[in-house]
Amino acid sequence: MKVIDALRINSGRLNGAIDAVAAINRQADGSCCRVALTDADCEGRRLVLRWLEDAGLDVSIDPIGNIFATRGGSDDAAPVMTGSHLDTVATGGRFDGALGVIGGLEVLRTLNDADIVTRRPITLAIFTNEEGVRFQPDMMGSLVFSGQFDLQQALDARAAGGGPSLAEELQRTGFNGTAPIGEPRPAAYVELHIEQGPILHRTGGVLGAVQSLQGISWQEITINGISNHAGTTPMSMRHDAAYCASRIAVFLRELTQRRDGQLATVGRINLSPNMINVIAREAKLTVDLRNTSNDELRAAEAELQQFLQDLERSERVTIASRRLARTDPVQFDQAIVATIEDTARRLGYPISRMTSGAGHDAQMVARIAPAAMIFVPSVEGISHNPREHTDPAHLEIGANMLLHTLVQLANA
Amino acid sequence: MKVIDALRINSGRLNGAIDAVAAINRQADGSCCRVALTDADCEGRRLVLRWLEDAGLDVSIDPIGNIFATRGGSDDAAPVMTGSHLDTVATGGRFDGALGVIGGLEVLRTLNDADIVTRRPITLAIFTNEEGVRFQPDMMGSLVFSGQFDLQQALDARAAGGGPSLAEELQRTGFNGTAPIGEPRPAAYVELHIEQGPILHRTGGVLGAVQSLQGISWQEITINGISNHAGTTPMSMRHDAAYCASRIAVFLRELTQRRDGQLATVGRINLSPNMINVIAREAKLTVDLRNTSNDELRAAEAELQQFLQDLERSERVTIASRRLARTDPVQFDQAIVATIEDTARRLGYPISRMTSGAGHDAQMVARIAPAAMIFVPSVEGISHNPREHTDPAHLEIGANMLLHTLVQLANA
Repeated sequence: MKVIDALRINSGRLNGAIDAVAAINRQADGSCCRVALTDADCEGRRLVLRWLEDAGLDVSIDPIGNIFATRGGSDDAAPVMTGSHLDTVATGGRFDGALGVIGGLEVLRTLNDADIVTRRPITLAIFTNEEGVRFQPDMMGSLVFSGQFDLQQALDARAAGGGPSLAEELQRTGFNGTAPIGEPRPAAYVELHIEQGPILHRTGGVLGAVQSLQGISWQEITINGISNHAGTTPMSMRHDAAYCASRIAVFLRELTQRRDGQLATVGRINLSPNMINVIAREAKLTVDLRNTSNDELRAAEAELQQFLQDLERSERVTIASRRLARTDPVQFDQAIVATIEDTARRLGYPISRMTSGAGHDAQMVARIAPAAMIFVPSVEGISHNPREHTDPAHLEIGANMLLHTLVQLANA
Repeated sequence: MKVIDALRINSGRLNGAIDAVAAINRQADGSCCRVALTDADCEGRRLVLRWLEDAGLDVSIDPIGNIFATRGGSDDAAPVMTGSHLDTVATGGRFDGALGVIGGLEVLRTLNDADIVTRRPITLAIFTNEEGVRFQPDMMGSLVFSGQFDLQQALDARAAGGGPSLAEELQRTGFNGTAPIGEPRPAAYVELHIEQGPILHRTGGVLGAVQSLQGISWQEITINGISNHAGTTPMSMRHDAAYCASRIAVFLRELTQRRDGQLATVGRINLSPNMINVIAREAKLTVDLRNTSNDELRAAEAELQQFLQDLERSERVTIASRRLARTDPVQFDQAIVATIEDTARRLGYPISRMTSGAGHDAQMVARIAPAAMIFVPSVEGISHNPREHTDPAHLEIGANMLLHTLVQLANA
């Protein structure tokens, strides 16, 4: 075990592989554009596939295009799995998803180089269409893999604007595999990812042991007031949709101050007619609520509904809300979180328990296997943006953490 | 004087003329589209011009295209003037502007029919480009007429999107007259107009004696925050431009509740990137403040500036505001307002003193002559809209009020 404890990944090779994938279809502003199952995404997938085959791994592809690359163990046991995604948003960064995939590859290459045989096999998973930019829902590959979304429904998904179906794109690109859905079924799952939030960066942290993932409640609220002249309509006779939208945004901020750990965002407001001297007839706004407790999340939703009803009455407008998305919070596996913390202690890195504010494939796999995640810092919390950045030293720490956590789990 | 007191306008003729003008370039949704100095506007101007000439009036056109039609009096004195505009917004109603012009024409036709000679001449003015849709500023014709805006600057105004200049359009349409600017200079000015607000309609009123016109303060406020992920950014680390915009709208409503007669409207809000799960980086919003007291208006502007400074500090964002327009309030002539009230009493109509929330040519003429306005109700206060409507009975009352007010002033 001494030899294994001293084992370290090859930082140069890790960064070189990240660079090579990021160079595919790089945009003028430096952003990565590998939207799911476009030619650019498939170029990235094929490049990594070649590396996986060169590493002597046992590769399979399932009908939704998820790729699994397994390094055998001494026992014929369920593998320990790591993974993430290679697809990006239209103007994505270099690390979101790619770090988990290429970090996993680097772990397997490192084990190859050191000729180490683990008890359980270790499998690297590349899940299809995590971002959900072109085909909805997001996290589609891991949803299907974990049995939470129907394969046929996923295959029938169509790109916005009457483009091809997912099935057609899989066939066109040759990623319509035949491996059985849900296989290999992992004994444990650990995903390495950038935080995509500012907490580690702002607090000087290096590592997060992600123990939970927030539930998400998205709704679109439509307020119908009465359009009127800004100069001729007394304040008492107004039914101002823009004012009501503003009241909702201010109410939500107050709500987060009263309710522990509650996040609330109004990110989109569209007014009609949106003119300087016309009281808005209609406002459409979105509300994004997140909490790690489902009870708290439900309570926040209920408070908002009550507020909307009161506002309808006091401003004599009509307010309709439409649910756009709702996911329950996820509690990751405490034993795996403890293993991650233990690994950090052994490697000599400080680590703190965290919640993930973003969605990840790990939350889907968590339904069928004990799972958790390792976070490394995102500078300023910036993500989905060409300015997404993580210090190379933190990338190396993250990959070494993944190496030793996977080995620990595979040998347990 | 008995004969004159019994005199009434011809309601059928008034409505017929309004209909004929409204039919020009009527849109599918029923709206009027006679944007200043377009072919449609000029078709309306030429139609009315023909009626003015048929009525034997002395017509002159000045270099900005203002039309003046004078019916002589027994004395060689300064005329009493009425007037308004024929141009509309792109989707305007039938009455905004047109009622004042065609109501004035109907008054002169009625005096012709009854062979009545007033002491002073009576002049009907049709001011060019009141709406300011195509050429800025609005109320351009009356601004130039009253010496408050330079003729050459007005002639050089260009239609948005690189279109022709106002001078070119005047020449093309033949409305580049040669009458001296500012002539005839009126002894008094009274304008008949629809309220364009809901007060008369909601209170069951029939007539307004307009004694003042609100000052207008327009500004565009730009808030620069920091764009970030709605799920991964703790509330305490946010610099949310959408939240700040909402705070401003809510603050302004509170301000109107504290400050008597203050109006405040946020009619336009544009967020960037305006996405459901992204904290807004930028918000641009407009603020429309109106008050009949300039001191009060200035105080409201100052309160808003202070609020913006406080908000900048508390939310750690940057806020810039840019003035888009600022006009001082106008106090109309008390003697003319009293004459209007007296006329209503003689004709047996209830009347209430009012403030105009919208801008009108009368406010410009008020700088060079005693002036006031007569309002008739707008159903639901709707204007600049095909649903703009005034009950024909109210149109008739308004025109009779104009008739007897003008005669009273012309014989005084």
